[in-house]
Amino acid sequence: MSDLAVEPVLGFLERNFDASVARLCDLLRIPSVGTDPAFAEDTRRAALWLVERLRAIGLRAELRPTAGMPIVVAHDPDAPRGAPHLLYYGHYDVQPPDPLAEWVDPPFAPVIREGPHGKRVVARGAVDDKGQLMTWLEAIAAWKAVHGRLPVRVSVLVEGEEESASANLEPFLRANAEELRADVCVISDTGMLGVDEPAITIMLRGIAYCELRVRGPSRDLHSGMYGGAAPNPIHALCRFLAALHDEEGRIALPGFYARVVEPEPEIRAQWTRIPFDEKGFLESAGLARAVGEAGRSTLERLWARPSCDVNGIWGGYTGEGSKTVIPARAAAKLSFRLVPDQDPQEVIEQLRAFLAARIPPDYHWELVPMGTGRPIRVPADSSFVAAARRALARVFGKEPALVGCGGSIPVVATIKERLGMDSLLLGFGLDDDRPHGPNEKFELLCYLRGQLAHAALLAEAARARA
Amino acid sequence: MSDLAVEPVLGFLERNFDASVARLCDLLRIPSVGTDPAFAEDTRRAALWLVERLRAIGLRAELRPTAGMPIVVAHDPDAPRGAPHLLYYGHYDVQPPDPLAEWVDPPFAPVIREGPHGKRVVARGAVDDKGQLMTWLEAIAAWKAVHGRLPVRVSVLVEGEEESASANLEPFLRANAEELRADVCVISDTGMLGVDEPAITIMLRGIAYCELRVRGPSRDLHSGMYGGAAPNPIHALCRFLAALHDEEGRIALPGFYARVVEPEPEIRAQWTRIPFDEKGFLESAGLARAVGEAGRSTLERLWARPSCDVNGIWGGYTGEGSKTVIPARAAAKLSFRLVPDQDPQEVIEQLRAFLAARIPPDYHWELVPMGTGRPIRVPADSSFVAAARRALARVFGKEPALVGCGGSIPVVATIKERLGMDSLLLGFGLDDDRPHGPNEKFELLCYLRGQLAHAALLAEAARARA
Repeated sequence: MSDLAVEPVLGFLERNFDASVARLCDLLRIPSVGTDPAFAEDTRRAALWLVERLRAIGLRAELRPTAGMPIVVAHDPDAPRGAPHLLYYGHYDVQPPDPLAEWVDPPFAPVIREGPHGKRVVARGAVDDKGQLMTWLEAIAAWKAVHGRLPVRVSVLVEGEEESASANLEPFLRANAEELRADVCVISDTGMLGVDEPAITIMLRGIAYCELRVRGPSRDLHSGMYGGAAPNPIHALCRFLAALHDEEGRIALPGFYARVVEPEPEIRAQWTRIPFDEKGFLESAGLARAVGEAGRSTLERLWARPSCDVNGIWGGYTGEGSKTVIPARAAAKLSFRLVPDQDPQEVIEQLRAFLAARIPPDYHWELVPMGTGRPIRVPADSSFVAAARRALARVFGKEPALVGCGGSIPVVATIKERLGMDSLLLGFGLDDDRPHGPNEKFELLCYLRGQLAHAALLAEAARARA
Repeated sequence: MSDLAVEPVLGFLERNFDASVARLCDLLRIPSVGTDPAFAEDTRRAALWLVERLRAIGLRAELRPTAGMPIVVAHDPDAPRGAPHLLYYGHYDVQPPDPLAEWVDPPFAPVIREGPHGKRVVARGAVDDKGQLMTWLEAIAAWKAVHGRLPVRVSVLVEGEEESASANLEPFLRANAEELRADVCVISDTGMLGVDEPAITIMLRGIAYCELRVRGPSRDLHSGMYGGAAPNPIHALCRFLAALHDEEGRIALPGFYARVVEPEPEIRAQWTRIPFDEKGFLESAGLARAVGEAGRSTLERLWARPSCDVNGIWGGYTGEGSKTVIPARAAAKLSFRLVPDQDPQEVIEQLRAFLAARIPPDYHWELVPMGTGRPIRVPADSSFVAAARRALARVFGKEPALVGCGGSIPVVATIKERLGMDSLLLGFGLDDDRPHGPNEKFELLCYLRGQLAHAALLAEAARARA
């Protein structure tokens, strides 16, 4: 148990908020598009920036090589012996910024704009995950600045391949399990229910992401000379993708729902009471009404039901004007969001079997898995969840909701499997932040409250039983 | 009737063949991709090249401006009074060369390669239509070189927008009908049944080409945050495109077949006898078997039955790696090949009605027509068809077949409508020439025989009754 006071830390964060915004903008200016080889050097630069910042605030930080992007690891040289140990996880890579034309400001030139909740920072990575990881990093820095030390043991793990399936994280955790094992992993990569509505995420959907490539003729054909007598791979691809959902919005893969578990009745009951602004959620996406699986509420569809989306499709002539071609090839990227206890590998095999049964023999096809992540359920009754509830209640003046999250943070499963610990998911994003889309933003109010909440969590965690 | 001998003209063409290949390569080196604004200057350059060539062989040629690419028009200043009048039509624009990576040699650096029929020239436009238009241009040049004059009246019309729907040809023909009207239009933009199997095309399919744009959310969404509750425009597009064909390979638009006329029984009977190498036709496209409308032969499917192909599709993330997005937009280019007496405008309206009935209200959609052409039937008993049969029989030593063509030459309908004359379609392409695809080629044997056939046609046409 620590005897350090949290109030001066909170005051320090409020007084020095502008400097923390400037630091976030520095990080956002680095175009660390980890999925695109063209940005490899920039992505590495973001890792270096973090190492330098961690060292500046008094942690022992270093860049650890992997087969891909390096991993930033830091430890506290003055860690209080016997105190609970928290491992902070984040990622410094960001999604590609396309479609570029839809950005009002360039994606890697962060700007502060006014919105209904005051100022916000607009840039790729503003909320996912640079802005969010900076909330805990600033909180740690404030504790160090005010008290010279932290009330708990702290380690840091920031990777650069989260947006491209974290291929090198799992072997890294395996090789360094002894060093990285802690009592709990703290992650800020999730959201709140509103700017005044804190939340702790206790369910995360998993993911199975694939690319499907279909080939028909061995070369592009003239659609006049061959049209009506040659197989068109775009047709085969469309017919297959159209068959993935039935008329009720359910996914048609045989066996797909066999392992799906419904959430506990009290959790579902709580979801009917939480202040979810469904109208605002839909309007922020320009939607008049929700769609999806029949007989389910929007929150259930997003948090507790699996989904399938085609994330990209291409084939044939896509330039200006017209070209009368039957293309040799067409392809699509598609992904499934999974819920406990679905198994991503099993879903990919179900997809493969569905393909084998449905694509006619006139086509060659190939299914390329591009990343999986298991769905997650976090025990809601741990002492760290209790500490986080107290920390959030202190900063927001109300109890946080226990929510699900439609997105995937596959690292939560990897950490559970490799380091044997649960994760504490407290995030500060809003539904309209547009992660992965153009004009991604992070409310400065959320940025500040995130810092305050993490500062309070450090104090509360000192009282938690590991 | 002309008293000029054809034999010395044929001999001249044989002796000077290498020079004619060099001229064709000069023209092929100009990247006249008329559909792409980036190549506008190059496309104009191809028109200028033709004007210069036509002047060099003794015609009065000029570049006539349009709202788009200029049209090359030429007349013979020494035209024999009272002789039949032939208008030669061709086009100097070519299809875009993509996919570029699949070309063995660069598309606009013509090379001579060896093949099973001897030498061939490989380049974008080799057969469609630069190589083919050069067959008649070289024949005219040879008559002029040998005799100083032509046995019939000759005019020339070469446009630069055939591959992008000839938007400016129709107003040009309307404005210049008096100048351009002749007894018959001669076009070489079709094929033979084999290198030794000449053909005259008496049926051409028409076309209706559209772009279909679908919008779901107002912005790209994170597929985790919205997946399962937001409409995905790729799904809507795929479901719609998948519904365009029924299980029998028939097109599902209500009313689509109402105006389709079956060819005369004697034409269909002839088609069962002609030496169509179906196996070779399929193998050249890497296909093991023909597909298409149930209960129809491959030649019927290609020549006498309508078809529908998606020529391009795109939406969402199509770069390297993975991106978990629900895109705001998706689109496809699609086209219908039509047969007499289908009406392209009516088919577009049928498509629009099918869309309105099938795309759910969660999506906005837009259908952009991008060119139409009416299907054509040429009277098989005209004196010019008879002249062409004699000319081809002389060069090839056998009677030509009367065939259909799956491709569209919309100008044939436009010329019929605006100038009141039929077209004579004798072409020298082969099924494996890959027009519109990578590594397009033209056999030099076909190039030579085309020149000889056109030289003979000029003599035979002098005996035709206009």
